[in-house]
Amino acid sequence: MFSITVRDHIMIAHSFRGDVFGPAQRLHGATFLVDATFRREQLDEDNIVVDIGLATRELGAITAELNYRNLDENPEFAGVNTSTEFLAKVVADRLAERIAKGALGEGAKGLSALSVTLHESHIAWASYERDL
Amino acid sequence: MFSITVRDHIMIAHSFRGDVFGPAQRLHGATFLVDATFRREQLDEDNIVVDIGLATRELGAITAELNYRNLDENPEFAGVNTSTEFLAKVVADRLAERIAKGALGEGAKGLSALSVTLHESHIAWASYERDL
Amino acid sequence: MFSITVRDHIMIAHSFRGDVFGPAQRLHGATFLVDATFRREQLDEDNIVVDIGLATRELGAITAELNYRNLDENPEFAGVNTSTEFLAKVVADRLAERIAKGALGEGAKGLSALSVTLHESHIAWASYERDL
Amino acid sequence: MFSITVRDHIMIAHSFRGDVFGPAQRLHGATFLVDATFRREQLDEDNIVVDIGLATRELGAITAELNYRNLDENPEFAGVNTSTEFLAKVVADRLAERIAKGALGEGAKGLSALSVTLHESHIAWASYERDL
Amino acid sequence: MFSITVRDHIMIAHSFRGDVFGPAQRLHGATFLVDATFRREQLDEDNIVVDIGLATRELGAITAELNYRNLDENPEFAGVNTSTEFLAKVVADRLAERIAKGALGEGAKGLSALSVTLHESHIAWASYERDL
Amino acid sequence: MFSITVRDHIMIAHSFRGDVFGPAQRLHGATFLVDATFRREQLDEDNIVVDIGLATRELGAITAELNYRNLDENPEFAGVNTSTEFLAKVVADRLAERIAKGALGEGAKGLSALSVTLHESHIAWASYERDL
Repeated sequence: MFSITVRDHIMIAHSFRGDVFGPAQRLHGATFLVDATFRREQLDEDNIVVDIGLATRELGAITAELNYRNLDENPEFAGVNTSTEFLAKVVADRLAERIAKGALGEGAKGLSALSVTLHESHIAWASYERDL
Repeated sequence: MFSITVRDHIMIAHSFRGDVFGPAQRLHGATFLVDATFRREQLDEDNIVVDIGLATRELGAITAELNYRNLDENPEFAGVNTSTEFLAKVVADRLAERIAKGALGEGAKGLSALSVTLHESHIAWASYERDL
Repeated sequence: MFSITVRDHIMIAHSFRGDVFGPAQRLHGATFLVDATFRREQLDEDNIVVDIGLATRELGAITAELNYRNLDENPEFAGVNTSTEFLAKVVADRLAERIAKGALGEGAKGLSALSVTLHESHIAWASYERDL
Repeated sequence: MFSITVRDHIMIAHSFRGDVFGPAQRLHGATFLVDATFRREQLDEDNIVVDIGLATRELGAITAELNYRNLDENPEFAGVNTSTEFLAKVVADRLAERIAKGALGEGAKGLSALSVTLHESHIAWASYERDL
Repeated sequence: MFSITVRDHIMIAHSFRGDVFGPAQRLHGATFLVDATFRREQLDEDNIVVDIGLATRELGAITAELNYRNLDENPEFAGVNTSTEFLAKVVADRLAERIAKGALGEGAKGLSALSVTLHESHIAWASYERDL
Repeated sequence: MFSITVRDHIMIAHSFRGDVFGPAQRLHGATFLVDATFRREQLDEDNIVVDIGLATRELGAITAELNYRNLDENPEFAGVNTSTEFLAKVVADRLAERIAKGALGEGAKGLSALSVTLHESHIAWASYERDL
């Protein structure tokens, strides 16, 4: 099994609802390093997993949708805790949609799985993995 | 599959028995960065894998048991090489016990697996993974 | 010249005023890794720069004042752009005050200088250095 | 499941063929951090995954074959794009051969799987995993 | 004294002349992480050291001149060993020229010094510092 | 001003004397990442700060003297707290001696200063700087 990973980042504000979150119930923020990993069994005819230029561009388009914003004001996330693990799924699902539409090239349709890791600090991170 | 990871660290002394260890047979020491990863299929009702505050507290309780000590003097480790990979299992098994006892909250009983990685330097680390 | 550095972090929301900030004029947020460096010419009688336990505790008290908050709502920062470089100075000046008051121990009065670095992401950071 | 990982690095020149590579079609180069991970179900009688000294030595022998070279001039790679993911497989397969020949010790024959990750920068890396 | 740092990277091929370089006399390559640090005594009217957007853009323009190339073929470097420390100076001097021409904004003329660090691997890096 | 830095590491046991050290008064240990930085005003005739091969070899000789040992048993450190900042000075002074003796080459006599940073964990490090 092969994989490649590319890293981007976002800087967002948000707040959480629920006693479990303690002081993080207040409006605060985070820099999330966003690592997107693409997996496949065999390399394509160019000897790669996926065009890293397209992977970077499409991940960048997704992070641009989230970046420099207060996630509490995003209607898509109304009533939802935008936890690090949840946001990892948001990014992964949006990448999967773009792959399905061909945005990462025809070859990317040979990808078998995807995972996204968001680092919220040097001491905490979260991941979501899914099949394609 | 979702996961979250939290990082702590310990600073311990120990020595190894067996020719394979070369100079590490002498009493020496290590800083281990301790990364504990918690996995589950679906997020809980707070939209998280586990209460990160409780996860950090319980991991901290386990690292406190080991920290600033000479592991050669710990009766639990008598006659055992406290290799990085072995200590990863020690931490993981102690976390599993605490999860089973409810120390990470009732929701943590929905966790399916656990892995612990100990970094002994910038060029070597070890992991242990187990189901819950 | 000797120094020691300890790392903490904060997760805050804020926004900027001024065209130069582009999309960062919107309410967003950041995780700042906060590195505080303490300098002195000679070690003290314990052979250290400063009590690392007290340094960590006092840095933690300062980061707790800022953490999990929207800096736009802090009256101390009214009308001010809370840039990374500005916040580095805020942390450094608050540490200097605590040192002057003896919170890092009498020995800490032998410190000659202080610097604080805030990392806003894996690709950008800022520092402020000052004498004591 | 246990694993240990050791890190080495290589500094090589190469070029790619195919429009997908854009400016990387020109002769350029890379530092690859090379992380080799060894997995097994149970620890051996020394309480380890594999002799880390031998693992480091054998990984070093493989990186020495590649290091400080122009990969375009290596007959083994003629007509092949030496992408990061492809090179991860090259290193993994060469390690597997050495394990099979006993170069990592008799105990290493208990290893069940191997993965190699090559980091080409702080924002991109690739992996290859295989059974043993 | 304040500073901000931004990171970029380049992937180049080159070779060295001189016995001191051993196997690095062969054509090989490197990924250089390029950290550019801008210093000034007082923050500007926007409460920043320099417009980080312009700093990133101008550093990117300089790295683009070097990236994905064989430095041995660059007439500017004819007969010169393009060591990591030398390349740090090349980047710093080119940044200084752009600052002098106003490419980082009028405010950037208040900068007092510049340093550039190039990381050639996880175990080696080099810097060059200069006044402005 | 130019500099180059090379990284090595040591794994040692030790204990501290003095209430200020709390639980670190017990025998424990540390992995120290050891970064040695060499500075000079102008590059030498090979266009470098110092022969990085010799610098790495000599730093390695010094770390080998300390590595895999209990520093409490080293007569040179009798009655001394082997704090991170103190050990940074030990390494720096030993490097300075080797430079003076010509072990880093004749060219190394053009070096003007030296600094050594020891990282004891991901959240604490110490440095010592000196002239040559």
